[in-house]
Amino acid sequence: MSEPEITVLEALHSTPARRYLSPEPIGDDIVRKLLDAAIRGPNGGNTQRWAWIVLRDPAVKAQIAAFYQEGWDKLYGVHREVMLAQPESANGQGPANFRAGDHLAAHIQEAPVWIFPVLLGAAKSANPRLGASIYGAVQQLMLAARAYGIGSTLTTLHSGHEAETRELLGLPEDALTMALVPLGYPSKGRWAEPKRRPLDEVVFNDRYTAS
Amino acid sequence: MSEPEITVLEALHSTPARRYLSPEPIGDDIVRKLLDAAIRGPNGGNTQRWAWIVLRDPAVKAQIAAFYQEGWDKLYGVHREVMLAQPESANGQGPANFRAGDHLAAHIQEAPVWIFPVLLGAAKSANPRLGASIYGAVQQLMLAARAYGIGSTLTTLHSGHEAETRELLGLPEDALTMALVPLGYPSKGRWAEPKRRPLDEVVFNDRYTAS
Repeated sequence: MSEPEITVLEALHSTPARRYLSPEPIGDDIVRKLLDAAIRGPNGGNTQRWAWIVLRDPAVKAQIAAFYQEGWDKLYGVHREVMLAQPESANGQGPANFRAGDHLAAHIQEAPVWIFPVLLGAAKSANPRLGASIYGAVQQLMLAARAYGIGSTLTTLHSGHEAETRELLGLPEDALTMALVPLGYPSKGRWAEPKRRPLDEVVFNDRYTAS
Repeated sequence: MSEPEITVLEALHSTPARRYLSPEPIGDDIVRKLLDAAIRGPNGGNTQRWAWIVLRDPAVKAQIAAFYQEGWDKLYGVHREVMLAQPESANGQGPANFRAGDHLAAHIQEAPVWIFPVLLGAAKSANPRLGASIYGAVQQLMLAARAYGIGSTLTTLHSGHEAETRELLGLPEDALTMALVPLGYPSKGRWAEPKRRPLDEVVFNDRYTAS
């Protein structure tokens, strides 16, 4: 298998959340490459108080998929009619985005590999910057996946059932699942640039000014 | 200016924290490219409740550098003798790493550009996964910097003085500075692969098992 040649700048600009994922299997050699890239990411004091659970077990996925669907319904599904009636926005927050999220909620268990990035000893942390020790590594995982043509998206909607998820994954009580990242070859969509507000609306020189 | 050709996989494996940074200025066109890559990162529901402060003002930097030095001294500086007496470890947590952090604490104000990734409306959040909406974008910033030969490191040691920092940056009371990322051309060190524990110690198939 030759190494993908995509440049880092191209990858940074063409890794949107991919929510239509096929059940096509992902080789374990590739999954290991993604994780080997992930763990090169930053973490406080290089203490690496993390664990990376690679979940493929269909029965466990089905149970956590139900937690995910519930989280989706509570946060977004309840706004279905309003969301679908909106015009498409330049920010990518319109009906197409809603339908993609809705599709993922109904089909997440079909994604062949799920990754749970976990922080050990973090369950009682009150540090709002806790995620500084793992989400950079998660981004590395998703960018490496992009290089291999594998889609992913950073989700946290399972977390309404954190205790049950922890138990299903055999995690100690002080562990915290920081995300659920489904991985799969995309079945729809493309590697387009993520739509965002114009840079000048969010970047400030020296001092913030309210808009 | 031609676009850097480094592949994403190479960048993911060769972007360590760079703590020896020269005062050589960074062009504003490059800083904008880094931020344009950053904002393509993930954020919850694409709401983009973020602001990116580009700090170059020497007087403000000097004040926040004092907060940073204090944070360093409290968390790491107090362990100076123990840290410097340890053997170098395969994890990169030995004396060389301590000296690099110590150098950064004493010289951070010399880095020509500082980026503060800020979450708006987040100051009272109790969500331990809050950082999911910004640290992936911060990683994109640091990887784009890597492409241009610019070093960076994800730090949070200023945060013992969050209220004063917020005021110095003109941020609203409900904003939270999620990091301080100094940017600069490296004056020492190299783009080596970050040292981490072996993959098999931190990756688990389907279920976690305590080591």
